[in-house]
Amino acid sequence: MRAARTRFRVRYAETDGQRIAHHAVYPVWFEMGRADLLRDLGLDYGAMEEAGTFMVVADLHVRYRRPVHYDEELVLETTVRETGRSSVVVVYCLWRDDVQVATGETLMVMVGSEGRPISVPSALRDALAAPRAEGWQGDAPPPDLA
Amino acid sequence: MRAARTRFRVRYAETDGQRIAHHAVYPVWFEMGRADLLRDLGLDYGAMEEAGTFMVVADLHVRYRRPVHYDEELVLETTVRETGRSSVVVVYCLWRDDVQVATGETLMVMVGSEGRPISVPSALRDALAAPRAEGWQGDAPPPDLA
Amino acid sequence: MRAARTRFRVRYAETDGQRIAHHAVYPVWFEMGRADLLRDLGLDYGAMEEAGTFMVVADLHVRYRRPVHYDEELVLETTVRETGRSSVVVVYCLWRDDVQVATGETLMVMVGSEGRPISVPSALRDALAAPRAEGWQGDAPPPDLA
Amino acid sequence: MRAARTRFRVRYAETDGQRIAHHAVYPVWFEMGRADLLRDLGLDYGAMEEAGTFMVVADLHVRYRRPVHYDEELVLETTVRETGRSSVVVVYCLWRDDVQVATGETLMVMVGSEGRPISVPSALRDALAAPRAEGWQGDAPPPDLA
Repeated sequence: MRAARTRFRVRYAETDGQRIAHHAVYPVWFEMGRADLLRDLGLDYGAMEEAGTFMVVADLHVRYRRPVHYDEELVLETTVRETGRSSVVVVYCLWRDDVQVATGETLMVMVGSEGRPISVPSALRDALAAPRAEGWQGDAPPPDLA
Repeated sequence: MRAARTRFRVRYAETDGQRIAHHAVYPVWFEMGRADLLRDLGLDYGAMEEAGTFMVVADLHVRYRRPVHYDEELVLETTVRETGRSSVVVVYCLWRDDVQVATGETLMVMVGSEGRPISVPSALRDALAAPRAEGWQGDAPPPDLA
Repeated sequence: MRAARTRFRVRYAETDGQRIAHHAVYPVWFEMGRADLLRDLGLDYGAMEEAGTFMVVADLHVRYRRPVHYDEELVLETTVRETGRSSVVVVYCLWRDDVQVATGETLMVMVGSEGRPISVPSALRDALAAPRAEGWQGDAPPPDLA
Repeated sequence: MRAARTRFRVRYAETDGQRIAHHAVYPVWFEMGRADLLRDLGLDYGAMEEAGTFMVVADLHVRYRRPVHYDEELVLETTVRETGRSSVVVVYCLWRDDVQVATGETLMVMVGSEGRPISVPSALRDALAAPRAEGWQGDAPPPDLA
Protein backbone atom coordinates (compact mmCIF):
# COMPACT_ATOMS: atom_id res chain seq x y z
CA MET A 1 0.00 0.00 0.00
CA ARG A 2 1.11 3.49 -0.80
CA ALA A 3 0.56 6.88 0.70
CA ALA A 4 0.28 10.04 -1.34
CA ARG A 5 1.23 13.32 0.22
CA THR A 6 -0.56 16.53 -0.75
CA ARG A 7 0.62 19.89 0.56
CA PHE A 8 -1.65 22.91 0.37
CA ARG A 9 -2.71 26.09 2.17
CA VAL A 10 -6.15 26.85 3.62
CA ARG A 11 -7.90 29.31 1.28
CA TYR A 12 -9.77 32.32 2.67
CA ALA A 13 -12.94 31.19 0.89
CA GLU A 14 -12.67 27.90 2.80
CA THR A 15 -13.04 29.62 6.17
CA ASP A 16 -16.37 30.42 7.76
CA GLY A 17 -17.75 32.84 10.32
CA GLN A 18 -15.82 31.00 13.06
CA ARG A 19 -12.59 32.02 11.23
CA ILE A 20 -11.63 28.35 10.78
CA ALA A 21 -11.83 26.09 7.75
CA HIS A 22 -15.46 25.04 7.24
CA HIS A 23 -16.00 21.35 7.89
CA ALA A 24 -17.47 20.75 4.39
CA VAL A 25 -14.15 21.56 2.73
CA TYR A 26 -12.36 18.51 4.17
CA PRO A 27 -14.00 16.08 1.70
CA VAL A 28 -12.80 18.40 -1.08
CA TRP A 29 -9.26 18.11 0.26
CA PHE A 30 -9.61 14.33 0.53
CA GLU A 31 -10.58 14.27 -3.14
CA MET A 32 -7.35 16.10 -3.99
CA GLY A 33 -5.55 13.42 -1.99
CA ARG A 34 -7.22 10.64 -4.00
CA ALA A 35 -6.22 12.32 -7.27
CA ASP A 36 -2.63 12.55 -6.05
CA LEU A 37 -2.67 8.93 -4.86
CA LEU A 38 -3.81 7.79 -8.32
CA ARG A 39 -1.22 10.03 -9.97
CA ASP A 40 1.52 8.53 -7.75
CA LEU A 41 0.33 5.09 -8.87
CA GLY A 42 0.73 6.16 -12.49
CA LEU A 43 -3.02 6.52 -13.05
CA ASP A 44 -5.05 9.53 -14.16
CA TYR A 45 -8.56 9.88 -12.78
CA GLY A 46 -9.70 12.12 -15.64
CA ALA A 47 -8.64 9.46 -18.14
CA MET A 48 -10.39 6.78 -16.07
CA GLU A 49 -13.66 8.73 -16.37
CA GLU A 50 -13.17 9.19 -20.11
CA ALA A 51 -12.74 5.41 -20.33
CA GLY A 52 -16.07 4.99 -18.52
CA THR A 53 -14.90 4.20 -14.97
CA PHE A 54 -16.16 6.45 -12.19
CA MET A 55 -15.23 6.37 -8.50
CA VAL A 56 -18.28 7.28 -6.47
CA VAL A 57 -18.20 8.16 -2.77
CA ALA A 58 -20.66 5.83 -1.04
CA ASP A 59 -19.70 6.62 2.54
CA LEU A 60 -17.75 9.44 4.17
CA HIS A 61 -16.47 9.72 7.71
CA VAL A 62 -14.48 12.67 9.03
CA ARG A 63 -13.14 13.23 12.55
CA TYR A 64 -12.23 16.85 13.19
CA ARG A 65 -9.55 16.96 15.91
CA ARG A 66 -8.21 20.52 15.79
CA PRO A 67 -9.46 23.60 13.95
CA VAL A 68 -7.32 24.87 11.07
CA HIS A 69 -7.05 28.50 10.06
CA TYR A 70 -6.64 30.67 7.01
CA ASP A 71 -3.32 30.31 5.18
CA GLU A 72 -2.01 27.50 7.37
CA GLU A 73 -0.02 24.96 5.39
CA LEU A 74 -1.34 21.43 5.76
CA VAL A 75 -0.15 18.03 4.60
CA LEU A 76 -2.67 15.38 3.67
CA GLU A 77 -1.65 11.72 3.65
CA THR A 78 -3.90 9.45 1.56
CA THR A 79 -3.74 5.64 1.54
CA VAL A 80 -5.91 2.74 0.35
CA ARG A 81 -6.70 0.49 3.31
CA GLU A 82 -8.80 -2.22 1.67
CA THR A 83 -9.64 -3.28 -1.85
CA GLY A 84 -12.87 -5.18 -2.56
CA ARG A 85 -14.35 -6.51 -5.77
CA SER A 86 -15.82 -3.18 -6.84
CA SER A 87 -14.79 -0.88 -4.01
CA VAL A 88 -11.81 0.53 -2.17
CA VAL A 89 -11.59 2.10 1.28
CA VAL A 90 -9.39 5.19 1.29
CA VAL A 91 -8.09 6.68 4.54
CA TYR A 92 -6.81 10.17 5.17
CA CYS A 93 -4.65 11.85 7.82
CA LEU A 94 -4.37 15.62 7.79
CA TRP A 95 -1.38 17.20 9.52
CA ARG A 96 -0.30 20.71 10.48
CA ASP A 97 3.39 20.22 11.18
CA ASP A 98 3.39 17.24 13.55
CA VAL A 99 -0.17 17.73 14.83
CA GLN A 100 -2.85 15.47 13.42
CA VAL A 101 -5.74 17.87 12.80
CA ALA A 102 -8.21 15.47 11.17
CA THR A 103 -8.63 11.92 9.95
CA GLY A 104 -11.18 10.44 7.60
CA GLU A 105 -12.16 7.61 5.36
CA THR A 106 -14.28 7.13 2.28
CA LEU A 107 -15.78 4.04 0.72
CA MET A 108 -15.33 4.40 -3.03
CA VAL A 109 -17.43 2.30 -5.40
CA MET A 110 -16.37 1.83 -9.01
CA VAL A 111 -19.26 2.31 -11.39
CA GLY A 112 -19.59 2.23 -15.16
CA SER A 113 -21.15 4.93 -17.25
CA GLU A 114 -24.66 3.57 -16.53
CA GLY A 115 -24.05 3.82 -12.80
CA ARG A 116 -23.74 0.05 -12.10
CA PRO A 117 -20.88 -1.26 -9.93
CA ILE A 118 -17.99 -2.71 -11.90
CA SER A 119 -14.78 -4.47 -10.84
CA VAL A 120 -11.91 -2.36 -9.63
CA PRO A 121 -9.89 -1.80 -12.83
CA SER A 122 -6.89 -4.11 -12.98
CA ALA A 123 -4.49 -1.19 -13.45
CA LEU A 124 -5.65 0.21 -10.14
CA ARG A 125 -5.72 -3.19 -8.42
CA ASP A 126 -2.19 -3.99 -9.59
CA ALA A 127 -0.89 -0.60 -8.60
CA LEU A 128 -2.37 -0.95 -5.14
CA ALA A 129 -0.96 -4.46 -4.72
CA ALA A 130 2.60 -3.35 -5.47
CA PRO A 131 4.95 -3.47 -2.48
CA ARG A 132 4.42 -0.72 -0.01
CA ALA A 133 6.67 2.28 -0.02
CA GLU A 134 9.13 2.44 2.80
CA GLY A 135 8.38 4.23 5.88
CA TRP A 136 5.17 5.95 6.72
CA GLN A 137 2.51 3.75 8.36
CA GLY A 138 -0.27 6.28 8.68
CA ASP A 139 -0.45 6.11 12.44
CA ALA A 140 2.47 8.45 13.13
CA PRO A 141 3.47 11.73 11.53
CA PRO A 142 5.02 11.19 8.10
CA PRO A 143 8.82 10.81 8.30
CA ASP A 144 9.86 14.31 7.36
CA LEU A 145 7.45 15.73 9.91
CA ALA A 146 8.30 13.37 12.78
CA MET B 1 -39.02 41.07 -20.46
CA ARG B 2 -39.69 39.37 -17.19
CA ALA B 3 -38.14 39.36 -13.76
CA ALA B 4 -37.87 36.25 -11.66
CA ARG B 5 -37.79 36.56 -7.92
CA THR B 6 -35.78 34.12 -5.79
CA ARG B 7 -35.96 34.21 -2.01
CA PHE B 8 -33.30 32.46 0.09
CA ARG B 9 -31.27 32.67 3.28
CA VAL B 10 -27.51 33.07 3.55
CA ARG B 11 -26.01 29.70 4.55
CA TYR B 12 -23.35 29.45 7.24
CA ALA B 13 -21.00 27.73 4.81
CA GLU B 14 -21.35 30.77 2.53
CA THR B 15 -19.82 33.10 5.13
CA ASP B 16 -16.11 33.65 5.53
CA GLY B 17 -13.70 34.78 8.22
CA GLN B 18 -15.14 38.32 7.98
CA ARG B 19 -18.50 36.85 9.13
CA ILE B 20 -20.17 38.02 5.91
CA ALA B 21 -21.18 36.12 2.78
CA HIS B 22 -18.05 35.41 0.73
CA HIS B 23 -18.01 37.32 -2.56
CA ALA B 24 -17.63 34.14 -4.64
CA VAL B 25 -21.07 32.90 -3.61
CA TYR B 26 -22.93 35.70 -5.42
CA PRO B 27 -22.46 34.13 -8.88
CA VAL B 28 -23.91 30.91 -7.40
CA TRP B 29 -26.97 32.87 -6.28
CA PHE B 30 -27.22 34.53 -9.71
CA GLU B 31 -27.26 31.05 -11.26
CA MET B 32 -30.23 30.15 -9.04
CA GLY B 33 -31.90 33.31 -10.34
CA ARG B 34 -31.34 32.27 -13.96
CA ALA B 35 -32.84 28.84 -13.27
CA ASP B 36 -35.89 30.49 -11.72
CA LEU B 37 -36.17 32.96 -14.61
CA LEU B 38 -36.20 30.07 -17.10
CA ARG B 39 -38.71 28.18 -14.96
CA ASP B 40 -40.98 31.26 -14.87
CA LEU B 41 -40.75 31.35 -18.66
CA GLY B 42 -41.88 27.73 -18.81
CA LEU B 43 -38.40 26.42 -19.64
CA ASP B 44 -36.24 23.89 -17.81
CA TYR B 45 -32.48 24.38 -17.95
CA GLY B 46 -31.74 20.72 -17.18
CA ALA B 47 -33.88 19.67 -20.15
CA MET B 48 -32.15 22.27 -22.34
CA GLU B 49 -28.78 20.68 -21.53
CA GLU B 50 -30.12 17.20 -22.24
CA ALA B 51 -31.26 18.54 -25.61
CA GLY B 52 -27.71 19.75 -26.26
CA THR B 53 -28.02 23.48 -25.48
CA PHE B 54 -25.71 24.90 -22.83
CA MET B 55 -25.65 28.43 -21.41
CA VAL B 56 -22.06 29.38 -20.70
CA VAL B 57 -21.03 32.40 -18.63
CA ALA B 58 -18.65 34.44 -20.81
CA ASP B 59 -18.48 37.55 -18.63
CA LEU B 60 -19.42 38.27 -15.03
CA HIS B 61 -19.66 41.59 -13.25
CA VAL B 62 -20.69 42.00 -9.62
CA ARG B 63 -20.93 45.20 -7.59
CA TYR B 64 -21.01 44.54 -3.84
CA ARG B 65 -22.82 47.42 -2.13
CA ARG B 66 -23.49 46.18 1.39
CA PRO B 67 -22.25 43.10 3.24
CA VAL B 68 -24.80 40.38 3.96
CA HIS B 69 -24.68 38.12 6.98
CA TYR B 70 -25.48 34.57 8.03
CA ASP B 71 -29.17 33.65 7.95
CA GLU B 72 -30.35 36.95 6.48
CA GLU B 73 -33.19 36.50 4.04
CA LEU B 74 -32.46 37.96 0.63
CA VAL B 75 -34.50 38.46 -2.53
CA LEU B 76 -32.81 38.20 -5.91
CA GLU B 77 -34.43 39.77 -8.97
CA THR B 78 -33.24 38.36 -12.30
CA THR B 79 -34.05 39.85 -15.71
CA VAL B 80 -32.83 39.50 -19.29
CA ARG B 81 -31.69 42.90 -20.55
CA GLU B 82 -30.60 42.09 -24.10
CA THR B 83 -30.92 39.16 -26.46
CA GLY B 84 -28.37 38.70 -29.25
CA ARG B 85 -28.02 36.05 -31.92
CA SER B 86 -26.33 33.54 -29.66
CA SER B 87 -26.17 35.37 -26.37
CA VAL B 88 -28.26 37.02 -23.69
CA VAL B 89 -27.30 39.58 -21.04
CA VAL B 90 -28.84 38.78 -17.68
CA VAL B 91 -28.96 41.38 -14.91
CA TYR B 92 -29.40 40.82 -11.18
CA CYS B 93 -30.47 42.95 -8.22
CA LEU B 94 -30.07 41.53 -4.75
CA TRP B 95 -32.20 42.99 -1.95
CA ARG B 96 -32.34 42.70 1.83
CA ASP B 97 -35.74 44.18 2.58
CA ASP B 98 -35.66 47.48 0.70
CA VAL B 99 -31.86 47.82 0.63
CA GLN B 100 -30.08 46.94 -2.58
CA VAL B 101 -27.08 44.94 -1.37
CA ALA B 102 -25.58 43.96 -4.74
CA THR B 103 -26.12 44.14 -8.47
CA GLY B 104 -24.58 42.14 -11.27
CA GLU B 105 -24.72 41.03 -14.82
CA THR B 106 -23.61 38.06 -16.85
CA LEU B 107 -23.13 37.58 -20.57
CA MET B 108 -24.48 34.12 -21.39
CA VAL B 109 -23.47 32.43 -24.62
CA MET B 110 -25.50 29.53 -26.00
CA VAL B 111 -23.30 26.68 -27.11
CA GLY B 112 -23.97 23.25 -28.55
CA SER B 113 -22.56 20.03 -27.20
CA GLU B 114 -19.28 20.58 -29.11
CA GLY B 115 -18.83 23.98 -27.48
CA ARG B 116 -19.62 26.12 -30.57
CA PRO B 117 -21.99 29.09 -30.28
CA ILE B 118 -25.52 28.38 -31.51
CA SER B 119 -28.59 30.59 -31.92
CA VAL B 120 -30.63 31.38 -28.85
CA PRO B 121 -33.28 28.62 -28.88
CA SER B 122 -36.58 29.92 -30.26
CA ALA B 123 -38.47 28.78 -27.15
CA LEU B 124 -36.26 31.03 -25.06
CA ARG B 125 -36.33 33.89 -27.57
CA ASP B 126 -40.13 33.76 -27.78
CA ALA B 127 -40.52 33.57 -24.04
CA LEU B 128 -38.26 36.58 -23.58
CA ALA B 129 -40.12 38.57 -26.25
CA ALA B 130 -43.50 38.09 -24.55
CA PRO B 131 -44.99 41.25 -23.04
CA ARG B 132 -43.32 42.34 -19.86
CA ALA B 133 -44.94 41.57 -16.56
CA GLU B 134 -46.51 44.52 -14.83
CA GLY B 135 -44.69 46.48 -12.35
CA TRP B 136 -41.13 45.97 -11.31
CA GLN B 137 -38.57 47.83 -13.45
CA GLY B 138 -35.41 46.64 -11.76
CA ASP B 139 -34.30 50.11 -10.68
CA ALA B 140 -36.48 50.33 -7.57
CA PRO B 141 -37.26 47.79 -4.88
CA PRO B 142 -39.71 45.15 -6.12
CA PRO B 143 -43.35 46.13 -5.40
CA ASP B 144 -43.94 44.10 -2.28
CA LEU B 145 -40.75 45.44 -0.76
CA ALA B 146 -41.26 49.10 -1.67
CA MET C 1 -37.34 15.33 20.13
CA ARG C 2 -38.31 17.21 17.05
CA ALA C 3 -37.62 16.95 13.37
CA ALA C 4 -37.13 19.97 11.18
CA ARG C 5 -37.97 19.74 7.54
CA THR C 6 -35.99 21.72 4.95
CA ARG C 7 -37.03 21.78 1.31
CA PHE C 8 -34.59 22.94 -1.38
CA ARG C 9 -33.44 22.35 -4.95
CA VAL C 10 -30.02 21.12 -6.05
CA ARG C 11 -28.06 24.08 -7.44
CA TYR C 12 -26.08 23.79 -10.67
CA ALA C 13 -22.90 24.87 -8.86
CA GLU C 14 -23.43 21.93 -6.51
CA THR C 15 -23.10 19.39 -9.31
CA ASP C 16 -19.78 18.03 -10.54
CA GLY C 17 -18.37 16.45 -13.68
CA GLN C 18 -20.48 13.32 -13.01
CA ARG C 19 -23.58 15.55 -13.41
CA ILE C 20 -24.72 14.71 -9.87
CA ALA C 21 -24.52 16.70 -6.65
CA HIS C 22 -20.95 16.62 -5.36
CA HIS C 23 -20.62 14.66 -2.12
CA ALA C 24 -19.05 17.62 -0.26
CA VAL C 25 -22.27 19.62 -0.52
CA TYR C 26 -24.26 17.28 1.74
CA PRO C 27 -22.68 18.63 4.96
CA VAL C 28 -23.64 22.12 3.76
CA TRP C 29 -27.25 20.94 3.41
CA PHE C 30 -27.08 19.29 6.85
CA GLU C 31 -25.99 22.64 8.27
CA MET C 32 -29.10 24.26 6.76
CA GLY C 33 -31.10 21.51 8.48
CA ARG C 34 -29.52 22.31 11.85
CA ALA C 35 -30.32 26.01 11.43
CA ASP C 36 -33.93 25.14 10.64
CA LEU C 37 -34.11 22.72 13.59
CA LEU C 38 -32.92 25.47 15.95
CA ARG C 39 -35.35 27.94 14.37
CA ASP C 40 -38.22 25.46 14.86
CA LEU C 41 -37.18 25.20 18.52
CA GLY C 42 -37.38 28.99 18.84
CA LEU C 43 -33.60 29.45 18.81
CA ASP C 44 -31.40 31.48 16.48
CA TYR C 45 -27.91 30.13 15.78
CA GLY C 46 -26.56 33.55 14.77
CA ALA C 47 -27.67 34.98 18.12
CA MET C 48 -26.13 31.99 19.93
CA GLU C 49 -22.76 32.81 18.34
CA GLU C 50 -23.08 36.48 19.24
CA ALA C 51 -23.70 35.34 22.83
CA GLY C 52 -20.46 33.34 22.70
CA THR C 53 -21.78 29.80 22.08
CA PHE C 54 -20.52 27.97 19.03
CA MET C 55 -21.58 24.55 17.74
CA VAL C 56 -18.55 22.84 16.26
CA VAL C 57 -18.72 19.72 14.09
CA ALA C 58 -16.43 17.14 15.72
CA ASP C 59 -17.46 14.13 13.66
CA LEU C 60 -19.35 13.73 10.38
CA HIS C 61 -20.72 10.61 8.77
CA VAL C 62 -22.61 10.54 5.48
CA ARG C 63 -24.02 7.52 3.64
CA TYR C 64 -24.81 8.29 0.00
CA ARG C 65 -27.54 5.94 -1.19
CA ARG C 66 -28.70 7.39 -4.50
CA PRO C 67 -27.24 10.16 -6.67
CA VAL C 68 -29.21 13.40 -6.87
CA HIS C 69 -29.25 15.66 -9.89
CA TYR C 70 -29.45 19.31 -10.82
CA ASP C 71 -32.71 21.05 -9.95
CA GLU C 72 -34.25 18.06 -8.16
CA GLU C 73 -36.28 19.09 -5.15
CA LEU C 74 -35.16 17.40 -1.95
CA VAL C 75 -36.49 17.30 1.60
CA LEU C 76 -34.07 17.08 4.50
CA GLU C 77 -35.29 15.83 7.88
CA THR C 78 -33.09 16.85 10.82
CA THR C 79 -33.42 15.51 14.37
CA VAL C 80 -31.37 15.47 17.56
CA ARG C 81 -30.78 11.86 18.63
CA GLU C 82 -28.78 12.31 21.82
CA THR C 83 -27.87 15.17 24.11
CA GLY C 84 -24.72 14.97 26.24
CA ARG C 85 -23.18 17.39 28.70
CA SER C 86 -21.52 19.52 26.05
CA SER C 87 -22.53 17.78 22.86
CA VAL C 88 -25.49 16.72 20.76
CA VAL C 89 -25.75 14.08 18.04
CA VAL C 90 -27.80 15.30 15.08
CA VAL C 91 -29.12 12.87 12.47
CA TYR C 92 -30.26 13.60 8.94
CA CYS C 93 -32.42 11.86 6.35
CA LEU C 94 -32.51 13.25 2.84
CA TRP C 95 -35.47 12.37 0.62
CA ARG C 96 -36.39 12.79 -3.02
CA ASP C 97 -40.12 12.15 -2.97
CA ASP C 98 -40.36 8.87 -1.06
CA VAL C 99 -36.83 7.69 -1.84
CA GLN C 100 -34.21 8.04 0.87
CA VAL C 101 -31.21 9.34 -1.03
CA ALA C 102 -28.79 9.87 1.89
CA THR C 103 -28.51 9.71 5.65
CA GLY C 104 -25.97 11.23 7.97
CA GLU C 105 -25.05 12.25 11.44
CA THR C 106 -22.86 14.84 13.09
CA LEU C 107 -21.46 15.09 16.58
CA MET C 108 -21.76 18.75 17.58
CA VAL C 109 -19.70 20.08 20.48
CA MET C 110 -20.64 23.33 22.18
CA VAL C 111 -17.66 25.59 22.70
CA GLY C 112 -17.20 29.04 24.16
CA SER C 113 -15.43 31.89 22.44
CA GLU C 114 -12.01 30.55 23.57
CA GLY C 115 -12.74 27.19 21.97
CA ARG C 116 -13.27 25.21 25.20
CA PRO C 117 -16.26 22.85 25.55
CA ILE C 118 -19.17 24.31 27.52
CA SER C 119 -22.48 22.85 28.66
CA VAL C 120 -25.29 22.62 26.16
CA PRO C 121 -27.18 25.90 26.72
CA SER C 122 -30.28 25.35 28.83
CA ALA C 123 -32.51 26.96 26.19
CA LEU C 124 -31.39 24.33 23.72
CA ARG C 125 -31.54 21.49 26.25
CA ASP C 126 -35.07 22.46 27.30
CA ALA C 127 -36.25 22.84 23.74
CA LEU C 128 -34.88 19.42 22.86
CA ALA C 129 -36.49 17.84 25.92
CA ALA C 130 -39.96 19.08 25.02
CA PRO C 131 -42.40 16.33 23.99
CA ARG C 132 -41.78 14.97 20.56
CA ALA C 133 -43.89 16.13 17.68
CA GLU C 134 -46.44 13.64 16.43
CA GLY C 135 -45.70 11.37 13.66
CA TRP C 136 -42.46 11.16 11.84
CA GLN C 137 -39.95 8.68 13.32
CA GLY C 138 -37.07 9.19 10.92
CA ASP C 139 -37.04 5.62 9.68
CA ALA C 140 -39.88 5.99 7.18
CA PRO C 141 -40.66 8.75 4.70
CA PRO C 142 -42.12 11.81 6.43
CA PRO C 143 -45.95 11.66 6.58
CA ASP C 144 -46.77 13.87 3.62
CA LEU C 145 -44.35 11.93 1.45
CA ALA C 146 -45.40 8.43 2.50
CA MET D 1 4.33 47.00 -9.60
CA ARG D 2 4.78 43.33 -9.04
CA ALA D 3 3.15 40.19 -10.31
CA ALA D 4 2.66 37.13 -8.17
CA ARG D 5 2.47 33.77 -9.83
CA THR D 6 0.26 31.00 -8.39
CA ARG D 7 0.32 27.50 -9.84
CA PHE D 8 -2.49 25.05 -9.05
CA ARG D 9 -4.62 22.26 -10.49
CA VAL D 10 -8.38 22.34 -11.09
CA ARG D 11 -10.07 20.27 -8.36
CA TYR D 12 -12.84 17.81 -9.20
CA ALA D 13 -15.19 19.59 -6.79
CA GLU D 14 -14.61 22.77 -8.79
CA THR D 15 -16.11 21.27 -11.95
CA ASP D 16 -19.81 21.29 -12.73
CA GLY D 17 -22.24 19.31 -14.86
CA GLN D 18 -20.62 20.74 -18.01
CA ARG D 19 -17.38 18.97 -16.93
CA ILE D 20 -15.53 22.30 -16.80
CA ALA D 21 -14.53 24.47 -13.86
CA HIS D 22 -17.60 26.30 -12.57
CA HIS D 23 -17.43 30.04 -13.16
CA ALA D 24 -17.88 30.86 -9.45
CA VAL D 25 -14.55 29.28 -8.55
CA TYR D 26 -12.49 31.88 -10.44
CA PRO D 27 -12.93 34.55 -7.73
CA VAL D 28 -11.69 31.93 -5.22
CA TRP D 29 -8.57 31.45 -7.35
CA PHE D 30 -8.12 35.23 -7.63
CA GLU D 31 -8.21 35.41 -3.84
CA MET D 32 -5.36 32.88 -3.70
CA GLY D 33 -3.49 35.12 -6.12
CA ARG D 34 -3.99 38.16 -3.85
CA ALA D 35 -2.68 36.21 -0.86
CA ASP D 36 0.40 35.21 -2.85
CA LEU D 37 0.89 38.77 -4.09
CA LEU D 38 0.87 40.05 -0.50
CA ARG D 39 3.19 37.24 0.57
CA ASP D 40 5.62 38.15 -2.25
CA LEU D 41 5.53 41.74 -0.98
CA GLY D 42 6.48 40.51 2.48
CA LEU D 43 2.97 40.99 3.89
CA ASP D 44 0.62 38.48 5.52
CA TYR D 45 -3.11 38.98 4.96
CA GLY D 46 -4.04 36.98 8.06
CA ALA D 47 -1.86 39.25 10.20
CA MET D 48 -3.40 42.33 8.50
CA GLU D 49 -6.86 41.16 9.58
CA GLU D 50 -5.66 40.50 13.13
CA ALA D 51 -4.34 44.07 13.14
CA GLY D 52 -7.81 45.29 12.12
CA THR D 53 -7.33 45.89 8.39
CA PHE D 54 -9.64 44.04 6.02
CA MET D 55 -9.58 44.01 2.22
CA VAL D 56 -13.14 43.88 0.95
CA VAL D 57 -14.09 43.10 -2.64
CA ALA D 58 -16.29 45.98 -3.83
CA ASP D 59 -16.39 45.07 -7.52
CA LEU D 60 -15.53 41.94 -9.47
CA HIS D 61 -15.19 41.46 -13.20
CA VAL D 62 -14.27 38.17 -14.86
CA ARG D 63 -13.93 37.41 -18.57
CA TYR D 64 -14.02 33.70 -19.30
CA ARG D 65 -12.13 33.06 -22.56
CA ARG D 66 -11.64 29.29 -22.64
CA PRO D 67 -13.12 26.52 -20.50
CA VAL D 68 -10.73 24.74 -18.14
CA HIS D 69 -11.07 21.12 -17.12
CA TYR D 70 -10.47 18.81 -14.18
CA ASP D 71 -6.84 18.37 -13.16
CA GLU D 72 -5.46 20.87 -15.67
CA GLU D 73 -2.55 22.83 -14.27
CA LEU D 74 -3.09 26.58 -14.42
CA VAL D 75 -0.92 29.59 -13.66
CA LEU D 76 -2.49 32.73 -12.24
CA GLU D 77 -0.70 36.07 -12.55
CA THR D 78 -1.83 38.72 -10.07
CA THR D 79 -0.83 42.39 -10.18
CA VAL D 80 -1.94 45.67 -8.62
CA ARG D 81 -2.87 48.13 -11.37
CA GLU D 82 -3.86 51.19 -9.36
CA THR D 83 -3.62 52.33 -5.77
CA GLY D 84 -6.10 54.86 -4.40
CA ARG D 85 -6.47 56.42 -0.99
CA SER D 86 -8.38 53.49 0.48
CA SER D 87 -8.54 51.10 -2.43
CA VAL D 88 -6.47 49.10 -4.87
CA VAL D 89 -7.39 47.61 -8.23
CA VAL D 90 -6.00 44.11 -8.66
CA VAL D 91 -5.86 42.45 -12.08
CA TYR D 92 -5.57 38.77 -12.90
CA CYS D 93 -4.50 36.71 -15.91
CA LEU D 94 -5.09 32.99 -15.86
CA TRP D 95 -3.00 30.81 -18.18
CA ARG D 96 -3.01 27.18 -19.27
CA ASP D 97 0.45 26.84 -20.79
CA ASP D 98 0.59 29.79 -23.18
CA VAL D 99 -3.19 30.15 -23.61
CA GLN D 100 -4.89 32.93 -21.69
CA VAL D 101 -8.04 31.23 -20.37
CA ALA D 102 -9.47 34.09 -18.28
CA THR D 103 -8.78 37.60 -17.08
CA GLY D 104 -10.31 39.56 -14.26
CA GLU D 105 -10.11 42.47 -11.94
CA THR D 106 -11.29 43.34 -8.47
CA LEU D 107 -11.67 46.66 -6.69
CA MET D 108 -10.48 46.10 -3.13
CA VAL D 109 -11.45 48.55 -0.41
CA MET D 110 -9.52 48.68 2.85
CA VAL D 111 -11.83 48.81 5.84
CA GLY D 112 -11.28 48.85 9.59
CA SER D 113 -12.90 46.51 12.04
CA GLU D 114 -16.09 48.65 12.10
CA GLY D 115 -16.41 48.37 8.33
CA ARG D 116 -15.41 51.98 7.48
CA PRO D 117 -12.89 52.67 4.70
CA ILE D 118 -9.38 53.39 5.91
CA SER D 119 -6.20 54.40 4.13
CA VAL D 120 -4.21 51.74 2.34
CA PRO D 121 -1.70 50.65 5.01
CA SER D 122 1.70 52.22 4.40
CA ALA D 123 3.43 48.83 4.38
CA LEU D 124 1.25 47.81 1.46
CA ARG D 125 1.55 51.17 -0.28
CA ASP D 126 5.35 51.13 0.02
CA ALA D 127 5.60 47.55 -1.15
CA LEU D 128 3.47 48.34 -4.18
CA ALA D 129 5.50 51.45 -5.00
CA ALA D 130 8.78 49.54 -5.10
CA PRO D 131 10.33 49.21 -8.57
CA ARG D 132 8.63 46.72 -10.78
CA ALA D 133 10.11 43.30 -11.18
CA GLU D 134 11.74 42.63 -14.50
CA GLY D 135 9.94 41.08 -17.27
CA TRP D 136 6.33 40.15 -17.29
CA GLN D 137 3.93 42.94 -18.32
CA GLY D 138 0.65 41.11 -17.94
CA ASP D 139 -0.32 41.41 -21.58
CA ALA D 140 1.75 38.48 -22.84
CA PRO D 141 2.32 35.00 -21.43
CA PRO D 142 4.69 35.10 -18.46
CA PRO D 143 8.33 34.60 -19.53
CA ASP D 144 8.74 30.93 -18.74
CA LEU D 145 5.56 30.15 -20.61
CA ALA D 146 6.23 32.25 -23.70
